[in-house]
Amino acid sequence: MDKNPVSKATLGRLPSYLNYLRELPQDEYKHISATAIAKYLNLGEVQVRKDLAAVSGAGKPKVGYNTKDLISRLEDYLGYNKITNAVLVGAGKLGMALMHFEEFERYGVKIVAAFDLPEKIGDADSHVNLLPMNEFENYCTSQNIKLGIITVGEDAAQSVCNRMVKTGIKAIWNFAPCKIDVPNGVLLKSENLALSLAHLNNKLLNS
Amino acid sequence: MDKNPVSKATLGRLPSYLNYLRELPQDEYKHISATAIAKYLNLGEVQVRKDLAAVSGAGKPKVGYNTKDLISRLEDYLGYNKITNAVLVGAGKLGMALMHFEEFERYGVKIVAAFDLPEKIGDADSHVNLLPMNEFENYCTSQNIKLGIITVGEDAAQSVCNRMVKTGIKAIWNFAPCKIDVPNGVLLKSENLALSLAHLNNKLLNS
Repeated sequence: MDKNPVSKATLGRLPSYLNYLRELPQDEYKHISATAIAKYLNLGEVQVRKDLAAVSGAGKPKVGYNTKDLISRLEDYLGYNKITNAVLVGAGKLGMALMHFEEFERYGVKIVAAFDLPEKIGDADSHVNLLPMNEFENYCTSQNIKLGIITVGEDAAQSVCNRMVKTGIKAIWNFAPCKIDVPNGVLLKSENLALSLAHLNNKLLNS
Repeated sequence: MDKNPVSKATLGRLPSYLNYLRELPQDEYKHISATAIAKYLNLGEVQVRKDLAAVSGAGKPKVGYNTKDLISRLEDYLGYNKITNAVLVGAGKLGMALMHFEEFERYGVKIVAAFDLPEKIGDADSHVNLLPMNEFENYCTSQNIKLGIITVGEDAAQSVCNRMVKTGIKAIWNFAPCKIDVPNGVLLKSENLALSLAHLNNKLLNS
């Protein structure tokens, strides 16, 4: 099984393959062809073959994929059988919005705790596991957290990032509108929403 | 003046050029060279020249750019002199978080009103201009709104989009985790946050 990361586009299609396969009557569809999947989902056959090859290898000629096997490969690949627990630092409005995103679990990620300064925790939503920052290191190491989300402001982002890295977090999703540095071996993905909107506005103004 | 949209990377640097220029003592720096800007901001000189050329044309050899002129070109280009008013539909947690993003105004966009179903408006934050959906069309046409933000769920996204297009909105920023269709001539930018996180998790699991 090829364990290389796939493109974002492919990753976006994998859940629809999985949904489709899960809905098939298993005893009637022991095997399924890329042609059938492509037709049902209104996608190109070549694309479907390529996507599935990345997670499962090729189907057998004239037989297709073993449905049960393909389902479990997709589930494995998407991490659905092994939810990744994530923590979030910065329990402001954006942080709380992300804590309530149901979509994340469908993609194999669960935000298990949010952290902020003790004085900011009082008035926040109590439906989530909200903890003071001084418990951050203990929590992350004891829960073996590998994924961290930063929703603090510019001024605190780098120091939060450093604390994450120190506890053993290996992937960081940053919403602070600034550049942050991570050491080699730590993955960083930044979302600059203001810049995204500015870019759209720029196209609008100049169109 | 070239009014073509610039790349997201260039757009990301324009505000720092502007900040730097604004802070210069105007009487001492009637002109400024790309070299000086590049050095101060720790950027490549070629990149700075290219970025500035996109909004202002080239500097004069041995003299550089007229500082005052360059400031006003950058302000114009970034739309700072002409704030774009935007509306948002879907006053849930994410919508409210976006309403409170101060960054947007720094980039020339102001979310002037948020809309939702009348029954959802009651318990929302009163610091923003929150209106019932039945006032949507009137508001947008009377305020000549051209930019709309969608933060409703998958099921309502397309119909909200259609209503936006009908009122004359020409650019849509969509956070609903689904594909939506816009007619030719309407700009669409989708942010699928769950997919972004899934992609990072996928790299983490397979690294």
